[in-house]
Amino acid sequence: MKNFDCSIPTRIIFGEDGEKQVGKLIREYGFHKVLIHYGGGSVKRSGLLGQVKELLDKEGVGYVELGGVQPNPTLSLVREGIELCRKERVDLILAIGGGSVLDSSKSIGDGAGNPDRDVWDFFLGKAAPAGHIPVAAILTLSASGSEMSQSAVLTNEETGLKRGFNSPTHQPLFSICNPKLTYSVSKFQTGCGTVDIMMHTLERYFGWSKDSAITDRISEGLLKAVIEAGRIADQNPEDYEARATLMWAGSLSHNGLTGFGREFLMQVHQLEHELSGMYPRIAHGAGLSALWASWARYVCPAWPERFAQYASRVWNVDGDFEHPMNTALAGIKATEDYFKSLGMPVSLEELEVEPEKFEEMAEKCTNYGRRTLAGIRKLDKPEMIEIFKLAYPRR
Amino acid sequence: MKNFDCSIPTRIIFGEDGEKQVGKLIREYGFHKVLIHYGGGSVKRSGLLGQVKELLDKEGVGYVELGGVQPNPTLSLVREGIELCRKERVDLILAIGGGSVLDSSKSIGDGAGNPDRDVWDFFLGKAAPAGHIPVAAILTLSASGSEMSQSAVLTNEETGLKRGFNSPTHQPLFSICNPKLTYSVSKFQTGCGTVDIMMHTLERYFGWSKDSAITDRISEGLLKAVIEAGRIADQNPEDYEARATLMWAGSLSHNGLTGFGREFLMQVHQLEHELSGMYPRIAHGAGLSALWASWARYVCPAWPERFAQYASRVWNVDGDFEHPMNTALAGIKATEDYFKSLGMPVSLEELEVEPEKFEEMAEKCTNYGRRTLAGIRKLDKPEMIEIFKLAYPRR
Repeated sequence: MKNFDCSIPTRIIFGEDGEKQVGKLIREYGFHKVLIHYGGGSVKRSGLLGQVKELLDKEGVGYVELGGVQPNPTLSLVREGIELCRKERVDLILAIGGGSVLDSSKSIGDGAGNPDRDVWDFFLGKAAPAGHIPVAAILTLSASGSEMSQSAVLTNEETGLKRGFNSPTHQPLFSICNPKLTYSVSKFQTGCGTVDIMMHTLERYFGWSKDSAITDRISEGLLKAVIEAGRIADQNPEDYEARATLMWAGSLSHNGLTGFGREFLMQVHQLEHELSGMYPRIAHGAGLSALWASWARYVCPAWPERFAQYASRVWNVDGDFEHPMNTALAGIKATEDYFKSLGMPVSLEELEVEPEKFEEMAEKCTNYGRRTLAGIRKLDKPEMIEIFKLAYPRR
Repeated sequence: MKNFDCSIPTRIIFGEDGEKQVGKLIREYGFHKVLIHYGGGSVKRSGLLGQVKELLDKEGVGYVELGGVQPNPTLSLVREGIELCRKERVDLILAIGGGSVLDSSKSIGDGAGNPDRDVWDFFLGKAAPAGHIPVAAILTLSASGSEMSQSAVLTNEETGLKRGFNSPTHQPLFSICNPKLTYSVSKFQTGCGTVDIMMHTLERYFGWSKDSAITDRISEGLLKAVIEAGRIADQNPEDYEARATLMWAGSLSHNGLTGFGREFLMQVHQLEHELSGMYPRIAHGAGLSALWASWARYVCPAWPERFAQYASRVWNVDGDFEHPMNTALAGIKATEDYFKSLGMPVSLEELEVEPEKFEEMAEKCTNYGRRTLAGIRKLDKPEMIEIFKLAYPRR
C-alpha cells in the first residue's frame, strides 16, 4: 500500500426530500448571497429550481442565477459566472445538476476567489488557487462523483482543449443527494452514468501498484453493486434502491476511496477527453464506453493477472491460472457486453468519430509532445493512435 | 437505503514515517500548546514519545504531557487531563496510542471545551458539548477506529459503568497512521484488534435494514481483506501489507462507511461493555470474540437469510437456499473458528467470567430497566442473560 494523505470533508445529505433542507442549511452556514448555477430547462420544468428559490426566499437568503451549462462545460460561461460573483458579492455557489454544472461551479469558485489570476491557468497547471468561493450542490445525475471529489473538467472552446484540474478547493461544502431526483434521467444518460461510475473505480483499480488488498476488495464490492443497480435502473428507472446505489457509488468512486494506497493515472479518461473535446456532442460516459475494452485489451498483456483477478472477482469468471490471459479477456468481454446491454457504444464507429482525426487527438493528448501517460503500459502518441484504431470497428 | 447525513473531515496521513511530520503539521495548523496524552511505558521504550517531543521542540511548539491511560480509559484520568488543559491553556490534544488513548483524549477535549459541565454528563446523555479542544493522533494500534470516528467510550470507576458517547466533536483533526508502528503489537492484541475491526463492520451489517446493496458489498469486501490480513499478521507481525490493511480497515470500519443507509445498534458492543466494565482485565476485542457467535446463533432465527448471505459472500460457504439456516450457521461457525485460530476466546468460561454476575451485567446493560436494545431481535434483560448463558461453556 502506497502512502496517502487524504481528507474528504464534504457533507453528504443523502436520501428522499433532502433538497427541502437547502434554504435552512445555507442560512445556518451563514451565507448571504448565492449564485444558483444550472444547465438547461430540466430543472425549470421539474419545478426544482422554483422550489429552491422559494426555500431561499423563505430563509431570507439572497441569490442570483446563471443557467446554460452545457454537457461539456465551457470556459466562456465560467468567465461569465466569475464576473457575476464579483459584481453581486456572491459567497456561495449552489450547483443544481450533474457533473457539468458542478465542474462549472467549482471553476467559477476558483476564478472568483482569485481575482488576479486567469482561471484557465489553473487548468493548465500554471498556478494553484490561493482562495475560493465554496460550492454546494443539489445533485440530479449520478455519474461524475463531482459532488464529493476534488475534480473539475473544463473545455476551452477557443482551443478545443478539455482539461481536468484537481484541487482541495473543489470539494463541495455539502451535497444534497436525493435518488428520486434521478428518476427522470433517460435510459441513455443512466447508461452513461453507470459507465462513468464504474470507470472511476476501474481506472484506479488498473493503476500499477501491486499491493492494496483492502482497496481492491472495496472496489470489487462497489463494482458488483453498481453492475447490478445499473441493470435494474435501466429496466425500471423508478427503482429507489437501484437509483440510490448508483448515486452513492458515484460519490464513492471518485472521492478517493477506491484509489487509496494505489498509484494510477486515468488513461482512458485522458483519451476520452480528446474525443469529447473534439466532438462536444459525445457524452463523456459514451466515449469511455467506446474506448475502455480496446484500451484494456491493449494494456492487458503487460499485467494479465490483474485483469484475471478482476474477471474472477467481479464477473465470477472461472479462473484459468495456467493461462491468466484467458480469464482476463473473458472479464474484458463481460464488461463490454454489459456496456452494450445498457445501450452504450463499444466502438468509435458507432460514435461517428472520423479516423483521420486520431492523430490530432493523440497529439493533443500528449499536450503536443509534452507528456506521456504512465500506466500498466505507458502510452505515448503511437500507442494512443493504436488504441483509437483498435476501438474503431463496430462490434 | 435509509437517509443519512454524514461528514468525515478527519485528515488521514497514512504510511511509513508519517509521525515525522507531526511537529511541522501542528505548527502549520497554528497550535501553541499541546497536551501529549499516552498510555504506559511502550511509547517511551519504543522512543516514539521522545521523538515526538523533539519534533515539537524543533518547531517551537509547547507541550505538557499526561500518561497512564488504561486499556479501559477512566473518568478520573480524564478529569485530571481536563484540569491540566485549563491550567496550561492547551489548544490541541495529541493522542499517542490506540483507541483507549484516543477516547481518553476526546473526553478531555469535551470536558476542557465545556468548563461549565461535568464531562460524565455527556456520556449519560444529559447534555451535548457546545465546544471542544481538538484532538490529533499518532496511532499505534489497529482496532478501535477511534482515529477517524465520532465514538468515545469511558468507564466511571466509581459506578463501574462503561458508556459510549458519539459526537462530531470526537472526529480527530488529523490522524497519523503508520502501519510499522504496529509491528510490535503482540499476537494477542493483534487478534483483539482484528476482532474489533470485524465487529465494527459486522454490527452494522447485522442491523435490521433490508436494502443497502452497496454498503453490503463494501462491507463484505472489507471483511474479506481483514480476515486475510489478520491471518497473515498473526503469523508474520512485520508484514507491511497486512498491517496496513488492518490499520486502514480499522478506520473505515468505524468512520461510518460500513453503516451508511443502514439502521443498526451495536448489540454485542453493548453486551461487551458490561463484561469489561465489570472485569477491567478483559480486553474489549476478547470480550467481543467470546460473545459474538452466541449472540449470532441467538438472533439468527429472526433473519437467517441475512446470516446466510454473510456466510456465502464472506466465507464462500455453499448456499443452501431451501434451508438458509444451514448456510447461516456454517458462516457463524466459520467466524468462530477464525477467532479461535487467532487465539481469541470464544466463551465466557475462558475469560473466567462468573455466571452469577450475568444478571447484574444484564441489569446494567438495560440501564437499570430504562432501555432495551433494538436489533434483528430486540434484547431485554431476559434475552441478555440468555445470551450470556449460551456464551458461557468452553467450546
